[in-house]
Amino acid sequence: MDGTMKALVWRGAGDLRLEDHPLPRIRDPRDAIVRVTLSSICASDLHIRDGAVPRARPGVVLGHEFVGEIVETGTEVRKLKPGMRVAANVETFCGSCFFCRRNYVNNCEHGGWELGCRIDGCQTTYVRVPFAENGLNPVPAGLSDEDVIFVGDVLSSGYFGAELAEIRPGDSVAVLGAGPVGLCAMACARLFGAGRIIAVDLLENRLRLARARGWADDAINAAWEDVEERVRECTGGRGADAVIEAAGGKSTFQTAWRIARPHACVAVVAMYGEAQNLPLHQMYGKNLIFKTGGVDAVHCGRLLGLIADGRLDVRALITHRLPLDRILEGYAVFENKTDDCIKCVITPAAM
Amino acid sequence: MDGTMKALVWRGAGDLRLEDHPLPRIRDPRDAIVRVTLSSICASDLHIRDGAVPRARPGVVLGHEFVGEIVETGTEVRKLKPGMRVAANVETFCGSCFFCRRNYVNNCEHGGWELGCRIDGCQTTYVRVPFAENGLNPVPAGLSDEDVIFVGDVLSSGYFGAELAEIRPGDSVAVLGAGPVGLCAMACARLFGAGRIIAVDLLENRLRLARARGWADDAINAAWEDVEERVRECTGGRGADAVIEAAGGKSTFQTAWRIARPHACVAVVAMYGEAQNLPLHQMYGKNLIFKTGGVDAVHCGRLLGLIADGRLDVRALITHRLPLDRILEGYAVFENKTDDCIKCVITPAAM
Amino acid sequence: MDGTMKALVWRGAGDLRLEDHPLPRIRDPRDAIVRVTLSSICASDLHIRDGAVPRARPGVVLGHEFVGEIVETGTEVRKLKPGMRVAANVETFCGSCFFCRRNYVNNCEHGGWELGCRIDGCQTTYVRVPFAENGLNPVPAGLSDEDVIFVGDVLSSGYFGAELAEIRPGDSVAVLGAGPVGLCAMACARLFGAGRIIAVDLLENRLRLARARGWADDAINAAWEDVEERVRECTGGRGADAVIEAAGGKSTFQTAWRIARPHACVAVVAMYGEAQNLPLHQMYGKNLIFKTGGVDAVHCGRLLGLIADGRLDVRALITHRLPLDRILEGYAVFENKTDDCIKCVITPAAM
Amino acid sequence: MDGTMKALVWRGAGDLRLEDHPLPRIRDPRDAIVRVTLSSICASDLHIRDGAVPRARPGVVLGHEFVGEIVETGTEVRKLKPGMRVAANVETFCGSCFFCRRNYVNNCEHGGWELGCRIDGCQTTYVRVPFAENGLNPVPAGLSDEDVIFVGDVLSSGYFGAELAEIRPGDSVAVLGAGPVGLCAMACARLFGAGRIIAVDLLENRLRLARARGWADDAINAAWEDVEERVRECTGGRGADAVIEAAGGKSTFQTAWRIARPHACVAVVAMYGEAQNLPLHQMYGKNLIFKTGGVDAVHCGRLLGLIADGRLDVRALITHRLPLDRILEGYAVFENKTDDCIKCVITPAAM
Repeated sequence: MDGTMKALVWRGAGDLRLEDHPLPRIRDPRDAIVRVTLSSICASDLHIRDGAVPRARPGVVLGHEFVGEIVETGTEVRKLKPGMRVAANVETFCGSCFFCRRNYVNNCEHGGWELGCRIDGCQTTYVRVPFAENGLNPVPAGLSDEDVIFVGDVLSSGYFGAELAEIRPGDSVAVLGAGPVGLCAMACARLFGAGRIIAVDLLENRLRLARARGWADDAINAAWEDVEERVRECTGGRGADAVIEAAGGKSTFQTAWRIARPHACVAVVAMYGEAQNLPLHQMYGKNLIFKTGGVDAVHCGRLLGLIADGRLDVRALITHRLPLDRILEGYAVFENKTDDCIKCVITPAAM
Repeated sequence: MDGTMKALVWRGAGDLRLEDHPLPRIRDPRDAIVRVTLSSICASDLHIRDGAVPRARPGVVLGHEFVGEIVETGTEVRKLKPGMRVAANVETFCGSCFFCRRNYVNNCEHGGWELGCRIDGCQTTYVRVPFAENGLNPVPAGLSDEDVIFVGDVLSSGYFGAELAEIRPGDSVAVLGAGPVGLCAMACARLFGAGRIIAVDLLENRLRLARARGWADDAINAAWEDVEERVRECTGGRGADAVIEAAGGKSTFQTAWRIARPHACVAVVAMYGEAQNLPLHQMYGKNLIFKTGGVDAVHCGRLLGLIADGRLDVRALITHRLPLDRILEGYAVFENKTDDCIKCVITPAAM
Repeated sequence: MDGTMKALVWRGAGDLRLEDHPLPRIRDPRDAIVRVTLSSICASDLHIRDGAVPRARPGVVLGHEFVGEIVETGTEVRKLKPGMRVAANVETFCGSCFFCRRNYVNNCEHGGWELGCRIDGCQTTYVRVPFAENGLNPVPAGLSDEDVIFVGDVLSSGYFGAELAEIRPGDSVAVLGAGPVGLCAMACARLFGAGRIIAVDLLENRLRLARARGWADDAINAAWEDVEERVRECTGGRGADAVIEAAGGKSTFQTAWRIARPHACVAVVAMYGEAQNLPLHQMYGKNLIFKTGGVDAVHCGRLLGLIADGRLDVRALITHRLPLDRILEGYAVFENKTDDCIKCVITPAAM
Repeated sequence: MDGTMKALVWRGAGDLRLEDHPLPRIRDPRDAIVRVTLSSICASDLHIRDGAVPRARPGVVLGHEFVGEIVETGTEVRKLKPGMRVAANVETFCGSCFFCRRNYVNNCEHGGWELGCRIDGCQTTYVRVPFAENGLNPVPAGLSDEDVIFVGDVLSSGYFGAELAEIRPGDSVAVLGAGPVGLCAMACARLFGAGRIIAVDLLENRLRLARARGWADDAINAAWEDVEERVRECTGGRGADAVIEAAGGKSTFQTAWRIARPHACVAVVAMYGEAQNLPLHQMYGKNLIFKTGGVDAVHCGRLLGLIADGRLDVRALITHRLPLDRILEGYAVFENKTDDCIKCVITPAAM
């Protein structure tokens, strides 16, 4: 494809521009080109914009969460055909290296989080996806773009957190942070049989949503409640059987381990900006397990199936919708949580 | 306690009598005496009656599923006190032998399924429970007898089947048999995140109930439908990700392995009357896992918590209620499935 | 490549011929052509010869266990280059289908056991290997062909059996059958920490080898010893914590479940010729787990590493060596276990 | 029992006295009294002496690792009889609380590490052991006191570390600290099939012992070698598949996570004196798992079996032997590592 398209390009710390960008081309026989039909703005886009992601490359088109239609495939792409609707995986992975064979695709020797960070992403019209058979998931018939937009990033991250936390039916699960990933983690914790899910956040509207959708049973507003004391109340004094830390705030890591019962799993899926204090001498004998990390998005097919079967539905995260030409407004709304914004999705530019 | 009480006693094959029986006494310092407030009739009671359980002892009071109030405890019972309401575990177990320490309580070196089989059971007014701290589970405040009556036997068995089957969120799960254990297995499979639950039975009312309660998504009546073909349809041609065989019929074992996809887990929790054919040469390469067995009822506390949290509710199994003095009518109704009977519970005798 | 080579071809039940066969060519860009430097004869070659493997194709070159040197690669093969020494995997697998992504490569939707069964195998000079990057494992420097010849089939099968059996350090492990797979299973059971390994066979020389190499601690000759009684003696009366059935004899399946302790895992890796009797009514409550199946050979890299690190060495299985032009003698020696034959390897034909 | 015995009593920070102490008596029907035949000095004894263990009670007899003979049992003790030889568990646990039922005995609601810390320990002649059936393990016939002295503490801790680390056959395992727990962790890592074990310490004699006994394959002296670089060399550049941190030094926590490969398990079994720095922002995406904690000593029976079967032998840790009346010399030798001391065991006082 020749010519240009409008794209949101990161030009360096603090500098985002909606500008003309060359159309992408197949570069490797395993690539595909996708026409974006819906994308979104994610917290990590803000991190890149602010210069907080050292591996990001200036000049890159942002965006890594999207749905679209395949328009072209490389010669080694067998399972995908032009015309197919696909939901993208945030991660680019080869599928056959040491890490991929163990499902640790975040550490793929030939990929990882590349889209919208090190290679051009989806906040535009066309995007090239490497290792397309791994990174693009066919959308089951009958599902809309909004049904599946989060499958490859925030929903995968929430599922990842819930899976890391080793939840058994009936367990109490505390989730710190009721933002997009935290809310998805709650919805997924339910799939693992969580008995009582405790949502913690500073924003009432998010806590209300968590309860209204049945994702959380209890809500704690850390702005004026004593989180440790309230979790103890909700768990018969013992502490949470599992903790998912999806907030990444100043004190949330400390809260996370304190509200966990002995031998609990603490899944730390938040992205932190600085080192935390790990008081091993104080927690000695509590025998906590900390699982840190960025999502290994290997369950997209499973998540799509759950959505198709009506078992998982996180459309309520979408509070705002804007066309591509107004994406910078979207960044502002999303960042400032204006008008109770949780997620802002981006539709194709009006002609 | 001195004196006698009415009890349903098994006198040998085919011979059940509602007769006077001595009141039980504490025999070991770890015993407790419980006053039965609700009990039930179970399929294994019929097996004993018919002489099909070699280890059963003639002269024994039948019944092993009940709720009651503690009236007396042995000197080594510390956690239970007279007046406490408890749901009983079908199994008597010491908690400290080789098997108990691995949670294999069904093979406790000093117990196993004893109540109503080898020692007097609960189809009466008072029952002695050995290793009372292990076998009696305090009922959470606010729950009725009917809420919790199944915790220690059919619900534990259903949970056991679902747990054995290694269900992951989104998996398709086929359950053969929509009787009490099969229905409980479906309800529990949901707790493990089953995407699509397929119920198979011969009785329409049971299949209807399974769907009406949301325990099953698909129902197959094996009386006139081709089970293998229908399961293939429901699973995109692949077969079920997990199978729970809770029927124990003439051909159900063969159906179970045939409807399983390669590498599936087939949990065989039904009690069989005779040997089955295992065509290893035909299934070679399909790499199936068969987990056979009688419940290890170690999750009663977990199940009570799920009921208290509103996450599990199998009260709909109770279709009939009769007082102890009419228990023989109950056996007839339960055995013949008269009036769509699923479970018949027994209330204390009218004065 | 044009021209012909000598190859052992199966022409139908009972009919093996060492005849001229066309040289293989690359047919798919993911293929590689390998020059065989060492191959072996396997029990399944005998099964095919006798017409007992319905999926085998007449006219096929036999053989599926080999080491060789890559001579040519298809255009999509990236990690392998001509000149590299490789040990082959018995299974051909795509690496990306539903089953492959779960490591169930035996059920690959585009492969499975193909080599020497449905497509030409290795009892010749050159062999075409589909999905070469998955099926060919680079041999670590310093290891000889004899060091690694078994990595892709009998050693993988032994490891598979030991892994299925869920062995924990200190467990007693009974292995039925001290043939190539059984002996490998013992060596691998040790890697999982088996405390006491009990070998059962009918041939003294194999039992002696098992003990001499430290693979077994106890040896039972089923020809004149009571296996159940002897296993009880070796396990303090309890039965084996894990059982690996690698014999496939008339009564070995029954022995396998009888010598298992309650709740044991019985890995059935033998290939059976007929259906077995599964007396579920007799084993009810024993709560056994049966894992059936053909190897998923996904641990070749791991096994090569263990060999390179000096932690695993099964060269003692090689009792006989013959050049390709005398391979039919090898079949006779292997089948009749002449001269205590365990495995016969095949070297390239003399010029 | 009346009268007194010599005992090493902690009188407050820095104050240890070998003084007369009352003989212990049964206080609870689940207690037993044991005559100590061999005890040891442990690093945690030094921590208590120095006032670094807040939960320790002044006036307590120190010591928690011992072998002895039962001399008296409470009325509820059924499995143990006077005259039996037993190896003690460092932990006192009830066996039936929420935590014990999950094998988290370190957090037993009625126990934990009590002996020689909160109740009188074993650096004397007689010791009272609560919950004796859980805390005392019968010694298999034929094993000496020195064979089994470490079963309940340092060997359990080493096994705990190896088990936490989720080692699979062939994995590379780095162990920081070649003191008693670290050396035991290496011996146990081998039981889980570790391919290459890398020992890291500052003391040459300990590293030499690790290699001489076959517990380690590689040894790194952190005093003059670059640990990160050397681990990379030993692991083909990837980092260790599993890390056991048994050192607890100033920089060892940082070393532990740096030498781990992505997605590795880092078992932190060392006892730390102060908080550590957890640079989540630097390790984001590396997806490490940290398992922190004090041993749950639930595998004593398993370890005794492995010792009896000749699969585990850590007697080489015993470098020094002194009678009880010279125990203070033992503390000095052990603390200063005089004469390459690793463990000093204490025999009964000379008459």
